[in-house]
Amino acid sequence: MTQERPYQTLSSRYLWQSRWYNLRQDQLRAADGSQFTYTVVEKPDAVWVVPVTNDGQVVLINQYRYAIDAWCLEVPAGNVEPGSDPHEMARRELREEIGGITDRIVPVAEFYTMNGIGNEVAHIFAALDVTLAQPAREPTEHIRLRLVPIDQALRLARSGDIKDGPSALALLLSEPVLRNTHGEHAP
Amino acid sequence: MTQERPYQTLSSRYLWQSRWYNLRQDQLRAADGSQFTYTVVEKPDAVWVVPVTNDGQVVLINQYRYAIDAWCLEVPAGNVEPGSDPHEMARRELREEIGGITDRIVPVAEFYTMNGIGNEVAHIFAALDVTLAQPAREPTEHIRLRLVPIDQALRLARSGDIKDGPSALALLLSEPVLRNTHGEHAP
Repeated sequence: MTQERPYQTLSSRYLWQSRWYNLRQDQLRAADGSQFTYTVVEKPDAVWVVPVTNDGQVVLINQYRYAIDAWCLEVPAGNVEPGSDPHEMARRELREEIGGITDRIVPVAEFYTMNGIGNEVAHIFAALDVTLAQPAREPTEHIRLRLVPIDQALRLARSGDIKDGPSALALLLSEPVLRNTHGEHAP
Repeated sequence: MTQERPYQTLSSRYLWQSRWYNLRQDQLRAADGSQFTYTVVEKPDAVWVVPVTNDGQVVLINQYRYAIDAWCLEVPAGNVEPGSDPHEMARRELREEIGGITDRIVPVAEFYTMNGIGNEVAHIFAALDVTLAQPAREPTEHIRLRLVPIDQALRLARSGDIKDGPSALALLLSEPVLRNTHGEHAP
Protein backbone atom coordinates (compact mmCIF):
# COMPACT_ATOMS: atom_id res chain seq x y z
CA MET A 1 0.00 0.00 0.00
CA THR A 2 1.57 3.28 -1.10
CA GLN A 3 0.82 6.19 1.18
CA GLU A 4 2.03 9.74 0.93
CA ARG A 5 4.03 11.73 3.43
CA PRO A 6 1.71 14.61 4.43
CA TYR A 7 4.45 17.02 5.57
CA GLN A 8 7.69 18.38 4.21
CA THR A 9 10.51 19.10 6.67
CA LEU A 10 11.83 22.62 6.04
CA SER A 11 14.44 22.81 8.79
CA SER A 12 15.60 20.96 11.87
CA ARG A 13 17.56 21.90 14.99
CA TYR A 14 18.40 20.38 18.34
CA LEU A 15 16.96 22.05 21.45
CA TRP A 16 18.80 19.62 23.74
CA GLN A 17 21.08 16.62 23.35
CA SER A 18 22.23 13.95 25.77
CA ARG A 19 23.46 10.39 25.95
CA TRP A 20 19.89 9.22 26.66
CA TYR A 21 17.81 11.17 24.16
CA ASN A 22 17.63 14.42 22.18
CA LEU A 23 14.96 17.01 21.64
CA ARG A 24 14.74 17.94 17.94
CA GLN A 25 12.52 20.74 16.71
CA ASP A 26 11.47 20.67 13.06
CA GLN A 27 9.74 23.27 10.95
CA LEU A 28 7.14 21.59 8.69
CA ARG A 29 5.01 22.53 5.70
CA ALA A 30 1.71 20.79 5.06
CA ALA A 31 0.20 20.14 1.60
CA ASP A 32 -2.00 23.25 1.95
CA GLY A 33 1.12 25.41 2.45
CA SER A 34 0.60 26.04 6.17
CA GLN A 35 3.70 25.83 8.38
CA PHE A 36 4.11 24.64 11.94
CA THR A 37 6.69 23.22 14.33
CA TYR A 38 6.92 19.65 15.64
CA THR A 39 9.24 18.73 18.49
CA VAL A 40 10.44 15.14 18.51
CA VAL A 41 11.98 13.11 21.35
CA GLU A 42 14.78 11.50 19.33
CA LYS A 43 15.80 8.37 21.17
CA PRO A 44 17.86 5.23 20.49
CA ASP A 45 15.98 1.97 19.99
CA ALA A 46 15.46 -0.08 23.13
CA VAL A 47 15.01 -3.75 24.05
CA TRP A 48 12.59 -5.50 26.40
CA VAL A 49 13.49 -9.11 27.24
CA VAL A 50 11.06 -11.70 28.66
CA PRO A 51 13.26 -14.17 30.59
CA VAL A 52 12.07 -17.68 31.39
CA THR A 53 14.10 -20.12 33.46
CA ASN A 54 14.44 -23.74 32.42
CA ASP A 55 11.81 -24.70 35.03
CA GLY A 56 9.21 -22.34 33.53
CA GLN A 57 9.49 -19.28 35.81
CA VAL A 58 9.28 -15.80 34.27
CA VAL A 59 11.80 -13.46 35.88
CA LEU A 60 10.11 -10.12 36.59
CA ILE A 61 11.85 -7.19 38.21
CA ASN A 62 10.43 -4.63 40.57
CA GLN A 63 12.23 -1.42 39.69
CA TYR A 64 12.17 2.14 40.98
CA ARG A 65 11.43 4.63 38.18
CA TYR A 66 12.36 8.19 38.98
CA ALA A 67 10.25 9.72 36.16
CA ILE A 68 7.06 8.52 37.86
CA ASP A 69 8.39 8.26 41.45
CA ALA A 70 7.11 4.71 41.76
CA TRP A 71 8.20 1.08 41.77
CA CYS A 72 7.10 -0.85 38.69
CA LEU A 73 6.90 -4.55 37.88
CA GLU A 74 8.70 -5.01 34.56
CA VAL A 75 10.87 -7.23 32.43
CA PRO A 76 14.55 -6.36 31.87
CA ALA A 77 14.96 -3.48 29.39
CA GLY A 78 17.43 -0.92 28.19
CA ASN A 79 18.59 1.29 25.34
CA VAL A 80 20.51 -0.14 22.41
CA GLU A 81 23.96 1.41 22.85
CA PRO A 82 26.10 2.77 19.99
CA GLY A 83 28.02 0.00 18.25
CA SER A 84 25.64 -2.67 19.52
CA ASP A 85 22.51 -4.28 18.05
CA PRO A 86 19.18 -5.25 19.66
CA HIS A 87 20.00 -8.95 20.01
CA GLU A 88 23.37 -8.24 21.65
CA MET A 89 21.74 -5.63 23.96
CA ALA A 90 19.05 -8.13 24.97
CA ARG A 91 21.81 -10.55 25.97
CA ARG A 92 23.64 -7.82 27.89
CA GLU A 93 20.57 -6.46 29.75
CA LEU A 94 19.62 -9.99 30.73
CA ARG A 95 23.11 -10.46 32.19
CA GLU A 96 23.32 -7.05 33.86
CA GLU A 97 19.83 -6.71 35.33
CA ILE A 98 19.09 -10.24 36.54
CA GLY A 99 22.34 -12.17 36.03
CA GLY A 100 20.57 -14.22 33.36
CA ILE A 101 22.51 -16.41 30.92
CA THR A 102 21.23 -18.34 27.90
CA ASP A 103 22.00 -19.08 24.25
CA ARG A 104 18.29 -19.02 23.34
CA ILE A 105 17.27 -15.39 22.85
CA VAL A 106 14.58 -15.19 20.15
CA PRO A 107 13.06 -12.09 18.53
CA VAL A 108 9.30 -11.74 19.17
CA ALA A 109 8.10 -8.37 17.85
CA GLU A 110 8.84 -4.68 17.37
CA PHE A 111 6.65 -1.68 18.13
CA TYR A 112 6.75 2.08 18.72
CA THR A 113 6.37 3.17 22.34
CA MET A 114 5.54 6.88 21.83
CA ASN A 115 4.91 7.63 18.15
CA GLY A 116 2.97 10.81 18.95
CA ILE A 117 6.07 12.57 20.32
CA GLY A 118 9.09 10.30 19.83
CA ASN A 119 10.77 7.76 17.60
CA GLU A 120 11.67 5.03 20.10
CA VAL A 121 11.41 1.48 18.70
CA ALA A 122 10.96 -1.36 21.21
CA HIS A 123 12.55 -4.66 20.17
CA ILE A 124 10.98 -7.55 22.08
CA PHE A 125 12.86 -10.77 22.79
CA ALA A 126 12.06 -13.93 24.72
CA ALA A 127 15.02 -15.44 26.57
CA LEU A 128 14.47 -19.17 27.11
CA ASP A 129 16.21 -21.72 29.36
CA VAL A 130 17.72 -18.89 31.40
CA THR A 131 20.04 -19.71 34.30
CA LEU A 132 20.50 -17.06 36.99
CA ALA A 133 23.91 -15.95 38.21
CA GLN A 134 24.99 -12.79 40.02
CA PRO A 135 23.74 -9.62 38.24
CA ALA A 136 26.08 -6.72 37.45
CA ARG A 137 23.89 -3.64 37.70
CA GLU A 138 24.42 0.01 36.97
CA PRO A 139 24.55 2.10 40.18
CA THR A 140 21.33 3.98 39.26
CA GLU A 141 19.28 0.77 38.93
CA HIS A 142 17.21 -0.20 41.95
CA ILE A 143 15.87 -3.64 41.21
CA ARG A 144 14.34 -6.61 43.00
CA LEU A 145 13.72 -9.96 41.29
CA ARG A 146 10.37 -11.74 41.36
CA LEU A 147 9.99 -15.20 39.79
CA VAL A 148 6.48 -16.28 38.80
CA PRO A 149 5.11 -19.16 36.70
CA ILE A 150 4.34 -18.34 33.03
CA ASP A 151 0.55 -18.38 33.57
CA GLN A 152 0.80 -15.99 36.49
CA ALA A 153 3.08 -13.61 34.56
CA LEU A 154 0.53 -13.51 31.71
CA ARG A 155 -2.29 -12.91 34.21
CA LEU A 156 -0.35 -10.02 35.75
CA ALA A 157 0.02 -8.52 32.27
CA ARG A 158 -3.66 -9.04 31.33
CA SER A 159 -5.01 -7.69 34.63
CA GLY A 160 -3.14 -4.41 34.30
CA ASP A 161 -0.94 -5.16 37.34
CA ILE A 162 2.15 -4.72 35.20
CA LYS A 163 2.05 -0.95 34.87
CA ASP A 164 4.98 -0.62 32.47
CA GLY A 165 3.12 -0.76 29.15
CA PRO A 166 5.98 -2.10 26.99
CA SER A 167 6.67 -4.86 29.58
CA ALA A 168 3.01 -5.92 29.64
CA LEU A 169 2.85 -5.97 25.83
CA ALA A 170 6.18 -7.83 25.64
CA LEU A 171 4.76 -10.57 27.89
CA LEU A 172 1.49 -10.86 25.94
CA LEU A 173 3.24 -10.95 22.54
CA SER A 174 5.66 -13.61 23.86
CA GLU A 175 2.84 -15.92 24.97
CA PRO A 176 3.05 -18.32 21.96
CA VAL A 177 6.84 -18.66 22.31
CA LEU A 178 6.62 -19.24 26.09
CA ARG A 179 3.85 -21.81 25.76
CA ASN A 180 5.57 -23.67 22.92
CA THR A 181 8.70 -24.05 24.98
CA HIS A 182 7.32 -24.65 28.44
CA GLY A 183 3.73 -25.74 27.98
CA GLU A 184 4.58 -29.40 28.35
CA HIS A 185 6.39 -28.78 31.66
CA ALA A 186 3.49 -26.95 33.31
CA PRO A 187 2.65 -28.32 36.79
CA MET B 1 4.25 -3.30 50.46
CA THR B 2 6.28 -0.31 51.67
CA GLN B 3 9.20 0.58 49.46
CA GLU B 4 11.67 3.38 49.82
CA ARG B 5 12.38 6.20 47.42
CA PRO B 6 16.05 5.71 46.46
CA TYR B 7 16.73 9.34 45.44
CA GLN B 8 16.24 12.79 46.89
CA THR B 9 15.45 15.62 44.47
CA LEU B 10 17.77 18.55 45.22
CA SER B 11 16.65 20.96 42.51
CA SER B 12 14.50 21.09 39.40
CA ARG B 13 14.37 23.36 36.36
CA TYR B 14 12.68 23.37 32.97
CA LEU B 15 14.89 23.08 29.89
CA TRP B 16 11.88 23.47 27.56
CA GLN B 17 8.13 23.90 27.90
CA SER B 18 5.28 23.59 25.42
CA ARG B 19 1.60 22.83 25.17
CA TRP B 20 2.44 19.19 24.38
CA TYR B 21 5.14 18.32 26.91
CA ASN B 22 7.98 19.78 28.95
CA LEU B 23 11.59 18.79 29.52
CA ARG B 24 12.44 18.98 33.23
CA GLN B 25 15.96 18.47 34.52
CA ASP B 26 16.39 17.42 38.16
CA GLN B 27 19.48 17.21 40.29
CA LEU B 28 19.33 14.06 42.46
CA ARG B 29 21.20 12.65 45.44
CA ALA B 30 21.37 8.88 45.99
CA ALA B 31 21.57 7.19 49.41
CA ASP B 32 25.37 6.88 49.10
CA GLY B 33 25.63 10.68 48.71
CA SER B 34 26.48 10.66 44.99
CA GLN B 35 24.74 13.26 42.84
CA PHE B 36 23.53 13.08 39.25
CA THR B 37 21.02 14.67 36.86
CA TYR B 38 17.86 13.06 35.46
CA THR B 39 15.93 14.67 32.62
CA VAL B 40 12.24 13.88 32.53
CA VAL B 41 9.73 14.23 29.67
CA GLU B 42 6.90 15.76 31.68
CA LYS B 43 3.71 15.07 29.77
CA PRO B 44 -0.04 15.22 30.39
CA ASP B 45 -1.88 11.93 30.79
CA ALA B 46 -3.35 10.52 27.57
CA VAL B 47 -6.25 8.29 26.55
CA TRP B 48 -6.47 5.38 24.12
CA VAL B 49 -10.01 4.31 23.19
CA VAL B 50 -10.98 0.95 21.66
CA PRO B 51 -14.20 1.64 19.70
CA VAL B 52 -16.59 -1.17 18.79
CA THR B 53 -19.68 -0.61 16.68
CA ASN B 54 -23.00 -2.20 17.63
CA ASP B 55 -22.42 -4.87 14.98
CA GLY B 56 -19.09 -5.93 16.49
CA GLN B 57 -16.59 -4.08 14.31
CA VAL B 58 -13.51 -2.52 15.91
CA VAL B 59 -12.76 0.88 14.41
CA LEU B 60 -9.02 1.17 13.78
CA ILE B 61 -7.36 4.19 12.26
CA ASN B 62 -4.41 4.35 9.93
CA GLN B 63 -2.59 7.50 10.93
CA TYR B 64 0.53 9.32 9.75
CA ARG B 65 2.99 9.89 12.61
CA TYR B 66 5.61 12.52 11.92
CA ALA B 67 7.95 11.43 14.75
CA ILE B 68 8.58 8.10 12.98
CA ASP B 69 7.72 9.20 9.41
CA ALA B 70 5.33 6.30 8.97
CA TRP B 71 1.64 5.39 8.87
CA CYS B 72 0.50 3.37 11.88
CA LEU B 73 -2.58 1.28 12.57
CA GLU B 74 -3.94 2.50 15.91
CA VAL B 75 -6.99 3.17 18.00
CA PRO B 76 -8.14 6.77 18.65
CA ALA B 77 -5.92 8.52 21.21
CA GLY B 78 -5.00 11.94 22.52
CA ASN B 79 -3.73 13.96 25.46
CA VAL B 80 -5.99 14.80 28.37
CA GLU B 81 -6.42 18.57 28.03
CA PRO B 82 -6.37 21.02 30.96
CA GLY B 83 -9.75 21.20 32.67
CA SER B 84 -10.83 17.84 31.27
CA ASP B 85 -10.62 14.30 32.65
CA PRO B 86 -9.73 10.98 30.96
CA HIS B 87 -13.32 9.80 30.51
CA GLU B 88 -14.41 13.10 28.94
CA MET B 89 -11.32 13.10 26.70
CA ALA B 90 -12.07 9.54 25.57
CA ARG B 91 -15.55 10.71 24.53
CA ARG B 92 -14.08 13.72 22.74
CA GLU B 93 -11.31 11.83 20.87
CA LEU B 94 -13.86 9.24 19.77
CA ARG B 95 -16.02 12.03 18.37
CA GLU B 96 -13.18 14.00 16.79
CA GLU B 97 -11.09 11.22 15.28
CA ILE B 98 -13.71 8.82 13.94
CA GLY B 99 -17.04 10.61 14.47
CA GLY B 100 -17.95 7.96 17.03
CA ILE B 101 -20.85 8.42 19.46
CA THR B 102 -21.89 6.27 22.41
CA ASP B 103 -22.98 6.47 26.05
CA ARG B 104 -21.05 3.28 26.90
CA ILE B 105 -17.42 4.25 27.48
CA VAL B 106 -15.92 1.97 30.12
CA PRO B 107 -12.49 2.20 31.82
CA VAL B 108 -10.26 -0.83 31.11
CA ALA B 109 -6.77 -0.18 32.51
CA GLU B 110 -3.99 2.33 33.09
CA PHE B 111 -0.28 2.01 32.39
CA TYR B 112 2.91 4.02 31.91
CA THR B 113 4.10 4.35 28.32
CA MET B 114 7.70 5.53 28.91
CA ASN B 115 8.60 5.26 32.59
CA GLY B 116 12.33 5.25 31.86
CA ILE B 117 12.29 8.84 30.60
CA GLY B 118 8.79 10.27 31.06
CA ASN B 119 5.70 10.35 33.26
CA GLU B 120 2.93 9.79 30.68
CA VAL B 121 0.01 7.71 31.98
CA ALA B 122 -2.17 5.95 29.39
CA HIS B 123 -5.84 5.60 30.36
CA ILE B 124 -7.47 2.82 28.36
CA PHE B 125 -11.19 2.80 27.58
CA ALA B 126 -13.47 0.57 25.57
CA ALA B 127 -16.25 2.40 23.72
CA LEU B 128 -19.17 0.03 23.08
CA ASP B 129 -22.20 0.28 20.78
CA VAL B 130 -20.52 3.07 18.84
CA THR B 131 -22.37 4.70 15.94
CA LEU B 132 -20.29 6.53 13.33
CA ALA B 133 -21.06 10.08 12.21
CA GLN B 134 -18.86 12.66 10.51
CA PRO B 135 -15.52 13.18 12.33
CA ALA B 136 -14.24 16.66 13.25
CA ARG B 137 -10.47 16.34 13.06
CA GLU B 138 -7.61 18.62 13.94
CA PRO B 139 -5.80 19.91 10.82
CA THR B 140 -2.58 18.05 11.73
CA GLU B 141 -4.28 14.65 11.89
CA HIS B 142 -4.02 12.46 8.80
CA ILE B 143 -6.33 9.55 9.42
CA ARG B 144 -8.07 6.75 7.53
CA LEU B 145 -10.65 4.47 9.13
CA ARG B 146 -10.47 0.68 8.95
CA LEU B 147 -13.27 -1.45 10.43
CA VAL B 148 -12.41 -5.04 11.33
CA PRO B 149 -14.22 -7.75 13.35
CA ILE B 150 -13.17 -8.09 17.01
CA ASP B 151 -11.27 -11.35 16.41
CA GLN B 152 -9.30 -9.84 13.57
CA ALA B 153 -8.44 -6.73 15.59
CA LEU B 154 -7.11 -8.93 18.39
CA ARG B 155 -5.13 -10.98 15.87
CA LEU B 156 -3.59 -7.80 14.44
CA ALA B 157 -2.54 -6.80 17.97
CA ARG B 158 -1.13 -10.25 18.84
CA SER B 159 0.76 -10.64 15.57
CA GLY B 160 2.63 -7.36 16.00
CA ASP B 161 0.91 -5.78 12.98
CA ILE B 162 -0.33 -2.94 15.19
CA LYS B 163 2.96 -1.13 15.61
CA ASP B 164 1.72 1.50 18.06
CA GLY B 165 2.50 -0.26 21.34
CA PRO B 166 -0.15 1.45 23.51
CA SER B 167 -2.85 0.70 20.87
CA ALA B 168 -1.88 -2.98 20.71
CA LEU B 169 -1.89 -3.25 24.51
CA ALA B 170 -5.20 -1.35 24.72
CA LEU B 171 -6.78 -3.91 22.37
CA LEU B 172 -5.41 -6.93 24.25
CA LEU B 173 -6.43 -5.55 27.67
CA SER B 174 -9.93 -4.78 26.32
CA GLU B 175 -10.47 -8.36 25.11
CA PRO B 176 -12.68 -9.49 28.06
CA VAL B 177 -14.91 -6.39 27.75
CA LEU B 178 -15.23 -6.77 23.97
CA ARG B 179 -16.04 -10.48 24.18
CA ASN B 180 -18.55 -10.03 27.01
CA THR B 181 -20.45 -7.47 24.98
CA HIS B 182 -20.24 -8.89 21.50
CA GLY B 183 -19.29 -12.56 21.88
CA GLU B 184 -22.89 -13.69 21.50
CA HIS B 185 -23.34 -11.72 18.26
CA ALA B 186 -20.29 -13.21 16.55
CA PRO B 187 -20.98 -14.52 13.05
